[in-house]
Amino acid sequence: MFGTSRAGGAVAESDAKTPRERYRAQVREEVKKHAWEQIATAGASALSLNAIAKRMGLSGPALYRYFANRDELITELVRDAYRSLADTFRARARAGADLADLAHALRGWALDDPQRYLLVYGTPVPGYQAPPDTTQIAAEMMAVLLDAAVAVEPPGAEAAESAAATPLDEHLADHRAWAAENPAPASALRRALAFWTRLHGVLSLELAGHFAGMGFDPARLYAAEVDGLTGR
Amino acid sequence: MFGTSRAGGAVAESDAKTPRERYRAQVREEVKKHAWEQIATAGASALSLNAIAKRMGLSGPALYRYFANRDELITELVRDAYRSLADTFRARARAGADLADLAHALRGWALDDPQRYLLVYGTPVPGYQAPPDTTQIAAEMMAVLLDAAVAVEPPGAEAAESAAATPLDEHLADHRAWAAENPAPASALRRALAFWTRLHGVLSLELAGHFAGMGFDPARLYAAEVDGLTGR
Repeated sequence: MFGTSRAGGAVAESDAKTPRERYRAQVREEVKKHAWEQIATAGASALSLNAIAKRMGLSGPALYRYFANRDELITELVRDAYRSLADTFRARARAGADLADLAHALRGWALDDPQRYLLVYGTPVPGYQAPPDTTQIAAEMMAVLLDAAVAVEPPGAEAAESAAATPLDEHLADHRAWAAENPAPASALRRALAFWTRLHGVLSLELAGHFAGMGFDPARLYAAEVDGLTGR
Repeated sequence: MFGTSRAGGAVAESDAKTPRERYRAQVREEVKKHAWEQIATAGASALSLNAIAKRMGLSGPALYRYFANRDELITELVRDAYRSLADTFRARARAGADLADLAHALRGWALDDPQRYLLVYGTPVPGYQAPPDTTQIAAEMMAVLLDAAVAVEPPGAEAAESAAATPLDEHLADHRAWAAENPAPASALRRALAFWTRLHGVLSLELAGHFAGMGFDPARLYAAEVDGLTGR
């Protein structure tokens, strides 16, 4: 149902085969543009298909031919957001990015569009449940991250010497559903999770304005967390 | 204007002097109760005084005698939320809490009422600006946190030996507005900030459901971050 607009307007248009399909893709992109404006001014939970129809000069029923309901629209926005971050991660990884590069890609992606960041990582929209395929995209990102975490692990002998397993390592070794088939050692699982939580910790507080007036530069704090995670 | 209901219903009632004031405080508490229900079901940005009036069997104008507008109501909820966390921190600190105890208090407070946590630390409500006194309450919390961070610093000679100043330390030494008059060393400033961002990182992802299906226990991840922050 959403297959024609996976990565935003440009791809959606070139994927569309007939003029009719192309027109449909264009209208859907326009609806999404209005939706992002609504989210910025009124919040995701106040998203209203009728309000968007009004702004576009369409009747409610006409708009519902493009998105069946609010949740379908939110799903499309969430999917675009996740997909753009996953694509960023994958492209960087293919270009040889290490864990620090991924960290800076995450920060760039977040600061580039705080609304997009907050739709995915901020307060959940009440009554909305993301469909399973967004979980799949999130899993793809964690897979890229985990590979990068494995790459900074010290080699075998050194690792055994330097790091006794922590209680968290022991827990993660037994609870590794999210690592799928990756045979990463527990210390790499731990590093990937710490990467995810520490960097989102800085970003979410920064984007919600909690560092305003504190006087320091959150970019420095972020960089220090990255250094700690990559052993620099 | 808000002085009579600083810490919720009980205090508000006992602070109120006349039956009329007591009644006013009771109605305001009831409005807030309905507001939290609205936030849970529709989101903070969809908060509507008229909808609350309807549920309470009041006219809109009658309700506006208790809260002048939506932002005044949100401010009261934000203030209650911040105040409850600040009171928790202060009470624990007075009872001799160390940094790890404060971490567990933060987690308890967050899990106890995720909506409350997300109103303060989740996606900002579009168009809403918290008043300066909430910043002041946040500063009080950071002060408690900073004292606890200073207390786990290694003593002077050991510290000088073990830790060369990091680039972040140098930055924080010059940008310490948030530490007010506290002469804490930069390493303690860094520890307090890492405490704040790392623990909020775990909590915000956990409460927004991002660990669902990953298979591990977020409490273990949180505990490991606390151990790292307290040098255990």
